[in-house]
Amino acid sequence: MITNFDQVFELLRSKDRKRMVAAWGVDSHTITAASLAIAKGIVDVTLVGDKDKILAVCTEEGIDHTIFTIIDNKDELKSIAQAVAMVREGSGDILMKGLCSTDKYMRGILNKENGLLPPKAVLSHVSVIQNPNYPKLIVMGDMAVIPAPDFKQKIAICKYLVNTAKALGIAMPKVAAIAATEQMLEGMPACVEAALLAKLADRGQISGCLLDGPLALDVALDPESASIKKLNSGVAGEADCLLFPNIESANVFYKTNSKLCKDVRQAAIVAGAMAPCVLSSRADSIDTKLNSIALAALTAK
Amino acid sequence: MITNFDQVFELLRSKDRKRMVAAWGVDSHTITAASLAIAKGIVDVTLVGDKDKILAVCTEEGIDHTIFTIIDNKDELKSIAQAVAMVREGSGDILMKGLCSTDKYMRGILNKENGLLPPKAVLSHVSVIQNPNYPKLIVMGDMAVIPAPDFKQKIAICKYLVNTAKALGIAMPKVAAIAATEQMLEGMPACVEAALLAKLADRGQISGCLLDGPLALDVALDPESASIKKLNSGVAGEADCLLFPNIESANVFYKTNSKLCKDVRQAAIVAGAMAPCVLSSRADSIDTKLNSIALAALTAK
Repeated sequence: MITNFDQVFELLRSKDRKRMVAAWGVDSHTITAASLAIAKGIVDVTLVGDKDKILAVCTEEGIDHTIFTIIDNKDELKSIAQAVAMVREGSGDILMKGLCSTDKYMRGILNKENGLLPPKAVLSHVSVIQNPNYPKLIVMGDMAVIPAPDFKQKIAICKYLVNTAKALGIAMPKVAAIAATEQMLEGMPACVEAALLAKLADRGQISGCLLDGPLALDVALDPESASIKKLNSGVAGEADCLLFPNIESANVFYKTNSKLCKDVRQAAIVAGAMAPCVLSSRADSIDTKLNSIALAALTAK
Repeated sequence: MITNFDQVFELLRSKDRKRMVAAWGVDSHTITAASLAIAKGIVDVTLVGDKDKILAVCTEEGIDHTIFTIIDNKDELKSIAQAVAMVREGSGDILMKGLCSTDKYMRGILNKENGLLPPKAVLSHVSVIQNPNYPKLIVMGDMAVIPAPDFKQKIAICKYLVNTAKALGIAMPKVAAIAATEQMLEGMPACVEAALLAKLADRGQISGCLLDGPLALDVALDPESASIKKLNSGVAGEADCLLFPNIESANVFYKTNSKLCKDVRQAAIVAGAMAPCVLSSRADSIDTKLNSIALAALTAK
C-alpha cells in the first residue's frame, strides 16, 4: 500500500512510461511541470501548440526542447482538438491542460463526436491528499467538476475513488460517505443518500469496497472520535476514500488542507474519460502539478 | 483586535465575571470544565442537578464543591427547565449543557413558553477557530444547528458571525460568503445566494460588515490565491468570518481543522437565544470546552 507521493513516483519508475499529450502546451508552467515529470522518468511528453512559443519558453526557462515531441499547431482550439484526438486514437495515455482555459479544455474532452467520452460517461474530479496528520493517502471527490451530484453520479464518483485507491495498492478501499453527522437524519439529504449508498454496498450492488455512511468527517478519519461514538463500522476512523455530498464540502476539504494545514501534498485528475485528464490551474504549486501527472500515469491503462 | 484564545481569557479577566448555569451539570466533563473556567476567573457557576451525584464527582475529581452554587434537582428534564428559567429570568448570563442529550437541551431552549427564544428567533451555531496558519481568529457558521439555511437564515447567521467578530474587537468584520468557486455561476445555488448577500451588503441592507461572495475557501483566506485570481474584493485573502452555504461544508471545515491541522484551538456556542448557550459534546477536548465558555462569556450581555 502506498502512503505518500514519493512512493507513487517510486512505483511509476518500475513501470513503463506513459505517454502524455499537453493540449496548447505553450506556457512556462505546463512546460516546466512536463519537463520535471520527464526528469522523474514517469512520462514521455508531446506538446501540441505553437512551436515558436514553445521553443521560446524552453530557451527562457533553460529547458532542453529535445526532451519533448513537439507538434506545431498555431491555433489554440485546433491544438486542443488535436491533442484530444491523439489520446482517443491511442497515441497518448494521458491528456494534460496547457495554457487554454478550463472551459475550452473541458469542451474538447466533452465533444460528442471527437472527444474522450465513453457512452454514458460521468466525468468527475478525483483528488488525492497526503496530510502528515493522517497515516494514509486520502482519495476524495468531487471538488470541482460535478456541481450537485445526484445519486447515480455519486455511485460513479464512488467507483472512481475506489479505482484510484486500488491503483494506490489498497485491495479493499474503505469509503466514507460524508455528511454533517453520523446519525441517519431523514430530513438531511446528505444523510439519506449516504445511508442508501451504504446499503447498496451491503447488498453487493456496489462492490470492490467497504462503504459506510453517513459519517461526519471526524468520525471518518479519527479512530478516537469513532470509538467515542461507539460506531459499528468497518470504515469509521480509517477511511481511504471520502465521498462528499456536494461540491462545496469537497472543495472546502481540499482547500482547508492546502491553505490551513502544513506539509500537505495534493494531486488531482479528471476521471471518467477514455484516459485520465490532468486539469491543474495556475494557482497550483509545481509539486501539485507533478503529483497530478503522476496520479494520471498511475491510473492510466 | 484579538487574534488568539489566550487574549480572549486576558480580556475577560478585565471584565465582570459572567454567571453560567449548567443544565443537568452532574458529570465529570461538565464539572471539570466549569471548575477550570472558575479558576481562570471568567465565570461564576451554578450547577443544576442531583446534588449527591455532583458532590460524588467533585470528591472523585478532587474539586472543591464550594466553588459552585449547587441547586439540587433530582430530575434531568426539570433540571434543564430550571436552568433555562434562571437564565430567562436574569439570574444567569450563559447556559451550559451538562450530561443531558443535545436533543433534550435544545428542546429546553426552544420551549415556546418557558424557553430562551426571543420572537422570530433564528438559533445558529457559531464557531471560532485559531489556526497557526492564519493570522487571525476565524469566526464561522453554521456547522451544527441549521441543516440547510435558507436565504433569510443566512442573513441571521451573518449577523451572529459579525456580532461575534465585533466582540473579538474587530470593528468592521470581513465576511466571506463561501462557495466552491469565486465565479458567479448561476447554476450553483451557493454562488447565487453568496452574490445576493454581497449585494445586500453593498446596498447597506446588511450593515456593520464588509461582505463579499461567492468566494472559494482558498481565495477567502489566502492573499496569494486572491492575488492570482485578481479579485476586486475587500474581503478576499483576509476574511474574519466564513459564512458557509450549507451545514456539510461548515462541518467539514470545522472538523478538518480539528483533525488534520496541528495546534488548532476551537470554541463554539449557539447564538440567537436570549443568552449564549454552550453546547459542547463528550468528544470535545477540555480546551475546546473552556474556550467555548470563554466565547459565551465574551458574547453575553
